[in-house]
Amino acid sequence: MIDRRTAATDAFPVSQRNRIKRLHERGRYDRNAVFAVLDAGFFCHVAYVIDGQPYCTPTIHWREGDVLYWHGSSASRMMRHLRSGTPVCVTVSHLDGLVLARSAFHHSVNYRSAMCFGAARIVVNAEEKARALDAFVNRLYPGRAEQLRPIRPQEVKAAMVVAMRIDQGSAKVRAAGVSDDEEDYELPIWAGVIPVRTLVGEAEPCARLRPDVARPEGLAAYRAGRTLDEALVETQRSYGDDRAR
Amino acid sequence: MIDRRTAATDAFPVSQRNRIKRLHERGRYDRNAVFAVLDAGFFCHVAYVIDGQPYCTPTIHWREGDVLYWHGSSASRMMRHLRSGTPVCVTVSHLDGLVLARSAFHHSVNYRSAMCFGAARIVVNAEEKARALDAFVNRLYPGRAEQLRPIRPQEVKAAMVVAMRIDQGSAKVRAAGVSDDEEDYELPIWAGVIPVRTLVGEAEPCARLRPDVARPEGLAAYRAGRTLDEALVETQRSYGDDRAR
Repeated sequence: MIDRRTAATDAFPVSQRNRIKRLHERGRYDRNAVFAVLDAGFFCHVAYVIDGQPYCTPTIHWREGDVLYWHGSSASRMMRHLRSGTPVCVTVSHLDGLVLARSAFHHSVNYRSAMCFGAARIVVNAEEKARALDAFVNRLYPGRAEQLRPIRPQEVKAAMVVAMRIDQGSAKVRAAGVSDDEEDYELPIWAGVIPVRTLVGEAEPCARLRPDVARPEGLAAYRAGRTLDEALVETQRSYGDDRAR
Repeated sequence: MIDRRTAATDAFPVSQRNRIKRLHERGRYDRNAVFAVLDAGFFCHVAYVIDGQPYCTPTIHWREGDVLYWHGSSASRMMRHLRSGTPVCVTVSHLDGLVLARSAFHHSVNYRSAMCFGAARIVVNAEEKARALDAFVNRLYPGRAEQLRPIRPQEVKAAMVVAMRIDQGSAKVRAAGVSDDEEDYELPIWAGVIPVRTLVGEAEPCARLRPDVARPEGLAAYRAGRTLDEALVETQRSYGDDRAR
């Protein structure tokens, strides 16, 4: 029997590793659904194992096609232990609302999350690494890398860049109102959704900013009052999310 | 030599596992610092290992003293694989601002994160589990558990609750402006901080809410326009965060 979700033309392959077990009707395996969650998030959590001990490290990610990148200092635990080939799981999650039902059991949250599996690849070539670091800046702040003081060879050396091709991914989304047991709707208990939004605030220029320097056009996506999600989806689009596919 | 941070009266023990390697001046090991990050977050990411493969699952946590709790369906992957004694790492992260410097290297973010290590303990006793589920509701929404339709035995059965005593924990915080190389401040490049806040929105009552039901007092912390952080710290305080210590 063909699974409607896994039969999507542009879906990640599904196995035990990424199959959604619980509330699988909320699950999606197609790239569009997974990328939408990844691209709307500023940071991810990377799970990896050292000597049987799991670690969960938050870091900033960026995406080019099927490849997720993140960077870190060569001195960090994660970066000292990740070797090319190390299995990792990268998860991006958004909280969108608190769902209060009439029973404890049906309390829930509205959320979007994506879980991606693959093997780490350490970017060792200095030129590829410098290019990746520029891409990192430009993906978040369109055109900014070219406006900055150029990156120095020792800075490239101090940074580590990890690339992970997404072998398998899945997204899970809840975006709905309260769902109670039918007989509970009649109860005199308050129920509803408290929405939660992550918003961009008013930019605070550096106290030592030269007075003749205006805020660059490339930051237009980050206007105050907007959701960070929207800004990140817009900047990813203007960066071009299909470069590496 | 006594380490100022690890010598704190109420600090978690420090070893290779939780020692902060990178930018260790941002690190803290005392309970107050770790709990402040945990309590201000609605959800965490749990890292665990199945057959050498790391997984990173987002879920909602609550805390009583040194013990972190989370729950899930007995059908979920995480819950089917966690056994009492399984090592886990639970991380809570907050993004507070985007820091744009004059060089790519000094771009950063303002953030708060806490990483906690321990062993999972599955709560099997039905009474303890029911009590934990009530505590979960009341920690988030003070006094709410008592107002709800009582939990049914089959609902207690369908839920799994994990308790993890925090053996080791650490917090890492950046809350500062732009930090550039001294000679770069003179460059005609825009630099500054774009703050990011996660805010509570206007509550949306369930469409099937009985017209005579008012919004309960216990939800007062979640008033529109407030940061979710503040609401969660307030509700944790009114719940009493030292119950289990």
